[in-house]
Amino acid sequence: MPTKRELNSLKKQKAKETLKKLETLAQGVIKTAEKGQNPSIDIPIRALSNVDWNEKKRIIEMGDRTQSRTLFNVNMAKRFAQTFLVASACKELLDAGKTTSIRDLYYMTKHTIGKTSENTFDDQAESDPIIEDLEVTINTLREELHLFASNRGSLVGELTLVDAGDTIDARKQGSGGWAVPSIVEDDVIQFKKCDAKFILLVEKDAVWRRLNEDKFWRKHKCILIQSQGQPARGVRRLVRRMTEELKIPLYVLVDNDPWGLYIYSVVKQGSINLAYESVRMAVPGARFLGLSSYDRERYDLPDGSTIMLNKKDETRAKQMMKYPWFQERKWQREMKKMLDSKVKLEIEALSRKGITFISDEYLPRKLAEKDWLV
Amino acid sequence: MPTKRELNSLKKQKAKETLKKLETLAQGVIKTAEKGQNPSIDIPIRALSNVDWNEKKRIIEMGDRTQSRTLFNVNMAKRFAQTFLVASACKELLDAGKTTSIRDLYYMTKHTIGKTSENTFDDQAESDPIIEDLEVTINTLREELHLFASNRGSLVGELTLVDAGDTIDARKQGSGGWAVPSIVEDDVIQFKKCDAKFILLVEKDAVWRRLNEDKFWRKHKCILIQSQGQPARGVRRLVRRMTEELKIPLYVLVDNDPWGLYIYSVVKQGSINLAYESVRMAVPGARFLGLSSYDRERYDLPDGSTIMLNKKDETRAKQMMKYPWFQERKWQREMKKMLDSKVKLEIEALSRKGITFISDEYLPRKLAEKDWLV
Repeated sequence: MPTKRELNSLKKQKAKETLKKLETLAQGVIKTAEKGQNPSIDIPIRALSNVDWNEKKRIIEMGDRTQSRTLFNVNMAKRFAQTFLVASACKELLDAGKTTSIRDLYYMTKHTIGKTSENTFDDQAESDPIIEDLEVTINTLREELHLFASNRGSLVGELTLVDAGDTIDARKQGSGGWAVPSIVEDDVIQFKKCDAKFILLVEKDAVWRRLNEDKFWRKHKCILIQSQGQPARGVRRLVRRMTEELKIPLYVLVDNDPWGLYIYSVVKQGSINLAYESVRMAVPGARFLGLSSYDRERYDLPDGSTIMLNKKDETRAKQMMKYPWFQERKWQREMKKMLDSKVKLEIEALSRKGITFISDEYLPRKLAEKDWLV
Repeated sequence: MPTKRELNSLKKQKAKETLKKLETLAQGVIKTAEKGQNPSIDIPIRALSNVDWNEKKRIIEMGDRTQSRTLFNVNMAKRFAQTFLVASACKELLDAGKTTSIRDLYYMTKHTIGKTSENTFDDQAESDPIIEDLEVTINTLREELHLFASNRGSLVGELTLVDAGDTIDARKQGSGGWAVPSIVEDDVIQFKKCDAKFILLVEKDAVWRRLNEDKFWRKHKCILIQSQGQPARGVRRLVRRMTEELKIPLYVLVDNDPWGLYIYSVVKQGSINLAYESVRMAVPGARFLGLSSYDRERYDLPDGSTIMLNKKDETRAKQMMKYPWFQERKWQREMKKMLDSKVKLEIEALSRKGITFISDEYLPRKLAEKDWLV
């Protein structure tokens, strides 16, 4: 186990690397200026037009196209200045060894320029994209710039980890669990003793509670994480690190509706909007454990357990059927079955078969029969 | 510290008491039926018309008015049956020593009646009010019926507690913290060693992270809780229990806008909709630490740190000024100042004065100067 001193030194080392990237960016601009040229930076384009589906790696990747942002250009001058304002605030954070929220950063960098009535930023909606620009330009995650978004999610199970120097035994975290923080890089979180054979990520905290109360993780030797809907960055990055470093598979349990399937899809191959993160966040080997459109018949669930698909569900399912990463026959079948049966199924619907049906029958049988999709 | 066996026996004892209440309710109905009369139950009315502001106790209370729900009445028969369907599912949970979500309960109790096309419940919007009816009728909290709502919130600080038999040292919960569960009754959560002098509840997780990173709780000997907006029931009940059992005061830190003030208000005196919970959830002594409408001047915050009040903010502030529990001069001044200045102020805006301004200056000065409202 790393000592607090070792952790601190790792933290400083990582901050130094990120600072170096920021400095290189700034020095490039200074050099151009010294030559009497128009300072500019090349920012990779974050749009569907610059997103590729890498079939071999099975992740959504950002393409190579970039866009120049120059200082002496009426349309770009403001964003050029904003980029360096954000970079400068991140430098301040890294120097101080502090982290902060993207909301905080907005306030930190917001001010009125000189005696004008012009603000550096009028709204967080202006500063957030600048953060993303900076991430892609210097190839770093916002967490490495010491910025965090909101956090959600909790964890229990057969794992001991170190969080900011404190040892957390996830086998002894009671009914509440350890709250997954938003920054889980290896200078904050380190894995110690793992007795788990797999990770189970459930989208709903009520289901997680059921499984934790039944001590499912102890019986089946796993790590149990809930994400309260679409997993926050902290949860995505954590499961990615766990699959890589602990070398155990990840199973995802979501509602049987297009939104549940999309949660799985983002965990597995990343999202279109933030394609540049996939390389550090996606878990291409993630297994879709359920609920499958076939579970209703396979597990003999009563009729009343389903909910009719609405117009929005149907549109979304049809849209998703066109995504390149859902072209394989198994996924097409899965979604077609959902559309044909005209119903969706929530994880909680398994309770129709008994309070602990999910812990005692559904999940054990799924795992034993290897009844999942990849 | 209670042993697992003692905890189990306490849990069983509590379940027995709740079961007893359910049985008394059911037996009343049976007796009426045996006499050949129309079975009925008296349900306290949950509406603004039956809510009182108890100025002495300083909580919002439910009044004495009840409504009869009878079986042989076309308008009531369904809800009468639903009430006992829910009661019966809760009995099942209590007997099994299991807890579940209100969503789960909806599925557990949903079925089609006989060969009709009539469902017991068509929607969770039908079963949720029935749960509330049951809570008020037998004077119990839903947590005692083994039902939970969603959970949010995390905790760190100078406290050791026991959660479902596991000892949680909140001084060693890393950057993530212990996730506050939704059921925090004393058969699940028990307090052990407390070195804290007060509790600080912040509405925003980003601010909580700032304070945890700065180890504010260690320097100022406190328990630090975040609620991610309006506190979930688990957080409210937990702070209530902590103020009573640990005998330490609760400070609330929220945005300076009507919504922040309302969060404080619900923590302090309860909500109108769920007035019957106040007696077990409200913390009448809760102190409003900030942000106050006067903080902008007192802490010399730059102009750019504020946001203009919008129409909705203004309407809400004017509405709240009429609430009986905000009639004292200090609250009227606070809200009038907000309306007059036409601006609101987020906690994050304190970052304009420096990353750690909140930990190093704002909060210490507030506490030292006893600059809070009760």
